[in-house]
This record gives sequence, structure tokens and C-alpha cells, in this order.
Amino acid sequence: MTPAKRAVVLLSGGLDSATCLAIARDMGFETYALSVAYGQRHAAELTASLRVAQALGAKEHRLARINLGQFGGSALTDPAIDIPEALPGDDERPCIPVTYVPARNTVMLSIAMAWAEVLGANDIFIGVNAVDYSGYPDCRPAFIQAFEAMANLATKAGIEGAQLRIHAPLIESSKADIIRRGIGLGVDYGITVTCYQADDAGRACGRCEACRLRAMGFAAADVPDPTPYQLRND
Amino acid sequence: MTPAKRAVVLLSGGLDSATCLAIARDMGFETYALSVAYGQRHAAELTASLRVAQALGAKEHRLARINLGQFGGSALTDPAIDIPEALPGDDERPCIPVTYVPARNTVMLSIAMAWAEVLGANDIFIGVNAVDYSGYPDCRPAFIQAFEAMANLATKAGIEGAQLRIHAPLIESSKADIIRRGIGLGVDYGITVTCYQADDAGRACGRCEACRLRAMGFAAADVPDPTPYQLRND
Repeated sequence: MTPAKRAVVLLSGGLDSATCLAIARDMGFETYALSVAYGQRHAAELTASLRVAQALGAKEHRLARINLGQFGGSALTDPAIDIPEALPGDDERPCIPVTYVPARNTVMLSIAMAWAEVLGANDIFIGVNAVDYSGYPDCRPAFIQAFEAMANLATKAGIEGAQLRIHAPLIESSKADIIRRGIGLGVDYGITVTCYQADDAGRACGRCEACRLRAMGFAAADVPDPTPYQLRND
Repeated sequence: MTPAKRAVVLLSGGLDSATCLAIARDMGFETYALSVAYGQRHAAELTASLRVAQALGAKEHRLARINLGQFGGSALTDPAIDIPEALPGDDERPCIPVTYVPARNTVMLSIAMAWAEVLGANDIFIGVNAVDYSGYPDCRPAFIQAFEAMANLATKAGIEGAQLRIHAPLIESSKADIIRRGIGLGVDYGITVTCYQADDAGRACGRCEACRLRAMGFAAADVPDPTPYQLRND
């Protein structure tokens, strides 16, 4: 029996990356989940990643820390910038949202590439989505293709003739499609955390952009929303 | 008077990156030096980077930490792998040296890209060299070009029509050429640390691959070697 092929899967603990991990497993890969603490305010997401990696049978799960918050420039790492509660299209919004973290996906893919190289893995999965995050430059298919081209020059794999592949299986999917696909693969979305300002118990605010896109996804998929929400009096 | 253009310069504290910082300054950039602690055994290099940034007038100097050592796979981060003392050509050596750190330059450039984006800088400098490090996949001109193409898709700059440039001004230079160029720009190489196993005071072993390439560079450039070496009794 040939050993299973290995894949590194970037895992935030959110809905998209959990689905991505399930897809990699379904494709027959032995999965190595990598979470990156980049200075995000929503650390509950990282706690969720531990549960998700275990539930979906990752062979190993590693956490890498890189403080992108020290450079500022994003609502996700800088407490001085408010998390928006408006949805795309609710009003005029800037071309690039304030929740964009400069270079985040490039940094995360680079770290994944480091681990993949040591593991001898030729496959990296990332749950980026160009539909909901159309304003993020590093969620576009052209970016993923350019990263893959670069990665094949940057590593041993490229020199030794192997081919490193960056899989972004959700990049063109709607949130409802992602949810239906994950449900079919046995993903328990109740243990994932999407909210930009979840509390320590992982309960979602229900108001931020990420929460609203997620809730609309469950509604559109006609799937009961398993998200634990914070109690509110207002 | 227009404000000076900003550039992020990757600064290890070694000879090449110090020269690179001097070149960026000479080109008229206001320089933002970035050192990356990636788990290297030679932490004396990072101490040297503080001296070099100050001596060469960097406007700011930041340290980013990312533990690539946790993935293993390199003599520079894994104490279980010996630092080689042979030079290229001394004997048969593997295609990719054990001192290669998987994805290191990609990770460092990605972090530099994050800071550049927040600073509004369109220029990043890296002191990679394809002559001495011909076995490192991420020291080749094709890698730098591919990274630049990816970077222009990954960031605001690419979307907003600016052009992000990755400068690798030393990539085709011999060590002697680099040293002559730096001397002409006022670089004090006595404060740089190149050695893979320097002591806490920054004194070089004089025996490792990096030390030997450096010493041969000073000899070939006909410049007195200012490197502080460890005392040895053997």
C-alpha cells in the first residue's frame, strides 16, 4: 500500500477553512493543519481551529505565530479601527475593506510552504473565497496562480521537478454552496468560529460583516444555523 | 520638497544586507529596516542588525519573529544538523545545502510586503546572492521575478495601479564586488556578522562556510578583513 499523500491545510477555525480541510481529506490526503496567529483580535478562531483539526482527523496541527499587527493597517489587528457592521453593497464602501490584513494570505501561504517542504508535501490548501471577499486582492484566482508559480521557483520541489499545487477549492463558491458541500462531508459548523469579535467562549456577535455573511449562507443553503450567538439585551 | 520615497530593506546584520541598505540609501530612499528572527541559531546576527540599521541611518528598524525552526529541515535552525565547514566544490555536496532554510526568503519578503503596504512603500530590498548561494532555490533571479509578479497581485499597490518592485541589487555580484561597493558607500563591515555560529559578542568562528566565503571576499577585494574572530587554541 502506498503511503497517503500529504497536504498542508491552512486552518483558521472558520467555516471556509473547515470545509477546505474536509475536502482535502475527502480527496485522500493525509492532512497537516496549520493555524497562523497573526495578531488577529478574534483569537477565539484559533481555539476553534483545535476542535476542527481534531474533529476532521488532521494528522498533525501546528500553530505559527507572526505578529502582523505590529505593522497596523487593518481592523482585524488594530483595536483603533472599528470592525464594520455593514455588508458589501449596504453603502458605498472602499475598494479594499478595513478588515483586509496586508499580505496576510501571502504570509500564511509562505509559512505553509515552509512546512510542506519539510514534510515532502506537494499540496497546500487554502479556503480563500473571491465571492464574499471580492475587495481583498489576495483572495483572487490570479493571486493564487501567481503564488503557485512563485512557490515552484522558491522551493526544492521546483528544482527537483515536483510540482507544488496551491488548492483553493472554494474560491468561486457562494457561502451556501460551501455550507452544502461541507455538510455533505460531515463538517460540524457548530464548532467553527467566523465572527470577527467572538467572545472567549467562541460565541458570535451576530452583527459584524463576517457574521452576517455566514448567517445569510445558512439561510440560502436552507440549513439550520448551528452558530452559538452571544446573548444580547439591546 | 517632495517627501523621500520609502523602501523596506530586509536586514540580517550580515555583510550582504548591510550593503543592500547602503545601496537603498544611496538611491535616495528613506529606509525602513526589517529583521526577521526565524529561529536561526546565529542570533548574534540580529544584534548586529541593530548596529547596522543605526550606522546606516535607517528611519525605523523593526523585528518580526516567526519560528520556522519548528518545522525543522535546516542546519541553521536545527541544532541536530551540523553546520558544514566545507566550501562549495570542496567535495561532492548535495544540490541544496543543509543550511538552506525552507521558504525563508519567501516568508521574509512576505512580511516585508506587509510592512511596505502599510507604509505606502513600493520598494523592497533584499540582499540575496545567486553566486555564493547557487544551491538555494530562493536566491535565483527567476524566484525574485516571480515573487514580484505575485506581490503585484497580492496587495493594494497592484489593485490601485502602483508597481511594487523587489530589488535584489547584489544577486549577480561576487563577494569581492559587494565588499568594494559597500566600502565606497561607507559601510563598516566590522559591525556586521556573517558567521553561522558567532559567539554572543558577535565574533566569528572563521571556519564555517559563511566565514570562509566572507574572508575570501575581503582577500579578493584586496580590503583588510575587519571581522572580529574568536580566539582559538587548536
